[in-house]
Amino acid sequence: MANRLNAANVRDVNITEGFFAGVGKMVREQVLPYQWEALNDRIEGAEPSHAVANFKIAAGELQGQHQGMVFQDSDLAKWIEAAAYSLSAHPDPELENTIDELVNTIAKAQQPDGYLNTCFTIKEPDKRWTNLRDWHEMYCAGHMMEAAVAYFEATGKDKLLNVMRGMARHIMTQFGAEDGKRKGYPGHQEIELALIKMFRATGDQSLLKLAAYFINQRGLSPNYFTQEHKPQSPNPTRKDPLSYYQSHLPVREQTTVEGHSVRALYMLSGMADVAAETGDDSLLNACETLYENAVNRRMYVTGGVGSTHIGEAFTYDYDLPNDTVYAETCASIALIFFAHRMLQIRPDSRYADVIERALYNTCMAGMSLDGKRFFYVNPLMVSPEASEKDPAKRHVLPERPKWFGCACCPPNLARLITSIGKYIYSAGQSSVYAHLFIDSEATMQISGQTISLKMKTDYPHNGRVTIDLSAGKYRLMLRKPAWCEAYTLNLRGKPIEVETVDGYLAIERQWQEGDRVEYDMEMPVYRVWANPKVAADIGKVCVMRGPLVYCAEERDNGKGLHALYLPRDAKWAESKLPDLPEGTITLSAEGKTADLSIDELYATTPPKLVNKQIQLIPYFAWANRGIGEMTVWLNDMAL
Amino acid sequence: MANRLNAANVRDVNITEGFFAGVGKMVREQVLPYQWEALNDRIEGAEPSHAVANFKIAAGELQGQHQGMVFQDSDLAKWIEAAAYSLSAHPDPELENTIDELVNTIAKAQQPDGYLNTCFTIKEPDKRWTNLRDWHEMYCAGHMMEAAVAYFEATGKDKLLNVMRGMARHIMTQFGAEDGKRKGYPGHQEIELALIKMFRATGDQSLLKLAAYFINQRGLSPNYFTQEHKPQSPNPTRKDPLSYYQSHLPVREQTTVEGHSVRALYMLSGMADVAAETGDDSLLNACETLYENAVNRRMYVTGGVGSTHIGEAFTYDYDLPNDTVYAETCASIALIFFAHRMLQIRPDSRYADVIERALYNTCMAGMSLDGKRFFYVNPLMVSPEASEKDPAKRHVLPERPKWFGCACCPPNLARLITSIGKYIYSAGQSSVYAHLFIDSEATMQISGQTISLKMKTDYPHNGRVTIDLSAGKYRLMLRKPAWCEAYTLNLRGKPIEVETVDGYLAIERQWQEGDRVEYDMEMPVYRVWANPKVAADIGKVCVMRGPLVYCAEERDNGKGLHALYLPRDAKWAESKLPDLPEGTITLSAEGKTADLSIDELYATTPPKLVNKQIQLIPYFAWANRGIGEMTVWLNDMAL
Repeated sequence: MANRLNAANVRDVNITEGFFAGVGKMVREQVLPYQWEALNDRIEGAEPSHAVANFKIAAGELQGQHQGMVFQDSDLAKWIEAAAYSLSAHPDPELENTIDELVNTIAKAQQPDGYLNTCFTIKEPDKRWTNLRDWHEMYCAGHMMEAAVAYFEATGKDKLLNVMRGMARHIMTQFGAEDGKRKGYPGHQEIELALIKMFRATGDQSLLKLAAYFINQRGLSPNYFTQEHKPQSPNPTRKDPLSYYQSHLPVREQTTVEGHSVRALYMLSGMADVAAETGDDSLLNACETLYENAVNRRMYVTGGVGSTHIGEAFTYDYDLPNDTVYAETCASIALIFFAHRMLQIRPDSRYADVIERALYNTCMAGMSLDGKRFFYVNPLMVSPEASEKDPAKRHVLPERPKWFGCACCPPNLARLITSIGKYIYSAGQSSVYAHLFIDSEATMQISGQTISLKMKTDYPHNGRVTIDLSAGKYRLMLRKPAWCEAYTLNLRGKPIEVETVDGYLAIERQWQEGDRVEYDMEMPVYRVWANPKVAADIGKVCVMRGPLVYCAEERDNGKGLHALYLPRDAKWAESKLPDLPEGTITLSAEGKTADLSIDELYATTPPKLVNKQIQLIPYFAWANRGIGEMTVWLNDMAL
Repeated sequence: MANRLNAANVRDVNITEGFFAGVGKMVREQVLPYQWEALNDRIEGAEPSHAVANFKIAAGELQGQHQGMVFQDSDLAKWIEAAAYSLSAHPDPELENTIDELVNTIAKAQQPDGYLNTCFTIKEPDKRWTNLRDWHEMYCAGHMMEAAVAYFEATGKDKLLNVMRGMARHIMTQFGAEDGKRKGYPGHQEIELALIKMFRATGDQSLLKLAAYFINQRGLSPNYFTQEHKPQSPNPTRKDPLSYYQSHLPVREQTTVEGHSVRALYMLSGMADVAAETGDDSLLNACETLYENAVNRRMYVTGGVGSTHIGEAFTYDYDLPNDTVYAETCASIALIFFAHRMLQIRPDSRYADVIERALYNTCMAGMSLDGKRFFYVNPLMVSPEASEKDPAKRHVLPERPKWFGCACCPPNLARLITSIGKYIYSAGQSSVYAHLFIDSEATMQISGQTISLKMKTDYPHNGRVTIDLSAGKYRLMLRKPAWCEAYTLNLRGKPIEVETVDGYLAIERQWQEGDRVEYDMEMPVYRVWANPKVAADIGKVCVMRGPLVYCAEERDNGKGLHALYLPRDAKWAESKLPDLPEGTITLSAEGKTADLSIDELYATTPPKLVNKQIQLIPYFAWANRGIGEMTVWLNDMAL
């Protein structure tokens, strides 16, 4: 894996202006403090999280009982991780002090043998590791390991890292290939990728070995979960099939992504990590097969994944219902994790295309524009009446609920956004890659030289990007998105011609101080059709501009969005709506709608089509202006 | 209600040839004997019904415990009712003897106070009437009352009728407006319409009064079910809202059909009966309002009702998903019951149109062509892969399951088919109505004269009907179906012109012996579009011929039926498929399909359409030739 890239370190990328500076500021100033209050049960009216209290009780600092889910610890871990990334770019002694105190508590909650999990330590210490399938001990450990690495990298402080290395050593005493150890692996994958992060931070090979063990052991016969849940077992029996846990087959024999989508994609992220570190081609091939299946058979145009809320799961190829969808925010975050790992292993812009699709559409839609509310489910078609009156659509909310006590998506989104820097750039051999177009300043190490880049852009609102580069001999790899059909590329104001390598414009030269690359991607409105095997989208069309999927909302178009027809020759005019943030490009065109004023249920004449101005907004901005219908797909007129 | 019609009595209508003679023979010779074996637990491999055994145990003829559902008794009742209708036209001393013995057992199972229900008599006599909402005692009583009336009318034997009058008297001691009686009503409606049948058979006004009480009491405040299920109540708590039981509002204040669709339509049938008998216009108006809501807002083109399997329920106006549908066979039977009652009260062909739609499409599709398997759920779009892999579609089966121990639809369908005679004709004042076109001979009483009719037809395969009438002065009211745009009408071989009254061709004259009416309805293929408010059908079209909805099956068209496009100018050719029953008209046209051979999930060019011969078969005949995809709605091309 000679071409392997190294993603930028979060601390080396500053984001000061543009789209993500705004989003990041919101997370830093609004989301993280709010979550901290929530984790400390100080939000009036919200169900208490008890996450901090659980650690204090386990640490002996507080009397009481464990409260919350079996995976409650992970909420706190995700918050620490998000806060640590935030500290990298935005030092905040008060926040750092808060975390230091918290780490002291966590360290005290650790048991003498290294074990760390407040639920079992407080409630049922004798039940430790007796239900790997359902009880999330390794999942919680994994998130705390990620937090530990992030905090170590942000501050150089290794106390939490050492706590979690202790937990890893404890796990090694329980599980592994050696005689006398159990042959288990987690029911909810996460620790695999976390162990690799700790390995990379410490160089401790045993961590890599344990991660590889969990990956390789998964799905072998006899199945560990089946053994664990024999009829005589005291453990609660869930009805999910083994595919829900991706343990229906050894990972290298899996050819379709199955089951709970976050678990599947965390597993694949860990698999890619292990493949990258061990050079295991069979594992990498499995990653590639499953990646292709996920993104080319089971992904919504918004980068959402998970077609059913029952099991929050993948279903089957081309099954992408828009209105009974799950498409959890966390699943798109997990897809980004996986694609980002693949991108480092096999640099190719198609991975970055998927990251961008998921990021700017599902992930950004996951949070309200004011950072106060979050979607878990990200539908492509919503009718408030359906959500209220059809029990099969009750999970599809027409408005973002407030963040509540125990919750996965909001802190997951926070850690994605505060670490967005690492997704922008990678360092290769004598090359620096710019995968995403985010206004930022970065310092990168390339083949021993330190280079700096300064990217200015209003992306995704337009496709103009300038990059100032520091002197040196290296290659700038500038992603050409799949949607980009025309661009201009200037160096010091003069057009240059370059080769495209793996979807990147390769600009190789001896850079001089003051070199500026101007990259102008034309960003016309374009239409997208789903593969006709997708029954839900047959005869329908979607409108995009750059990486952004557009949608129609009731607020702008009235009720009955399912009846909108887009003529093939309709011309889009760019517009701005006063009730959306500055810079947001909205679109307007002369379309049609079926005449909804008729009364009879069945008729022997076709519905009349009447003229109708269609107004679209970026999908990420939906559900910020009141409750109403929304649709991404429009009827495609003139077949 | 001066215009009220009297439906023909089952025993006065003989069906000897044609479509329903075949279906009836199958039920008589195959379905009823099979069900009798099932009710007696003699079907190998099937879960035992225990329905007959329960009665024997309650009667003291057998030792043992009650087995089966709380409503197990009703399976036996429906079978008796179906068998009784069958006896009317097809005397069978052995069958009659079987029923006589069974009636003796049922009579012995009745308690001294008149109570009859094997479940509570055997298991929990002290829990009688403590959970009207969930425990189906009145539902079981209602079905046995219907059986009692049917058997009395078929044989003149009143033993079972007297048993059930005793049960009705017992119920009157428990429930009613009088002081000291409870103000309850059944959780599953059925007894209301059954009490009216007993009232009509006996003239006992107290039965009408009790039926009216249950109707009038329903939904009043304080709500009986809520009172019955207070938190301190020992009864199990279900989560269904009151609308599931149609007790969210007094019946006259309900304006939309809500909740469990069979309950709703049985209730409406009972409401129509009470309105007919009491002349209560407010009740009749509520029936009309709810009828309109059901058939003009919430009915599938196949006459199916119930849009969600969760609660087997109605959802909201225009919500008619084709692939997550419920459309239970029993619900369409219940719709026929309701429409048939409305038809007698306000003779208008639109009621008969709905009866015919539900009968020839959903009901007939409910049973396999060989009478051995039954659908409960009647989808308009099926993919076997979706049914297997999407948990939200697991209830939508691509093949009819075998009839099993406890089951509502098969015996319900049996009693509908063995009583089909009464749906064909009605007697009005000096008029005889022919609502349906079913080859048959009937004797009717009209204003004191006895007339006879002999109808010959191959309907629904073609629209040619001849009727030989007996002499007398009366009006023949011949239904002109809503789908019929052109017809010829001959009397003794000569064209006649007649007035159309309420959707019926009114032929009034002094009939002579040997008069023959020839009615030839042109039966071209036609297209139907759903109201564009129906999101599931937008841009789609359905093909019909006469009363028959057509569908495409994978067997004839290959996979990917969702991608079929029907051009507006496609010409249909009638054809016959060798693997469908003699006489079945199938249709074939030059259509299109989206090219399904492309690989990419999202493209910036539209899918190509390629030529494709489209083959359709009547919906009632689907799923008889192996497992595969099916769709009723096709993409409507050339908008």
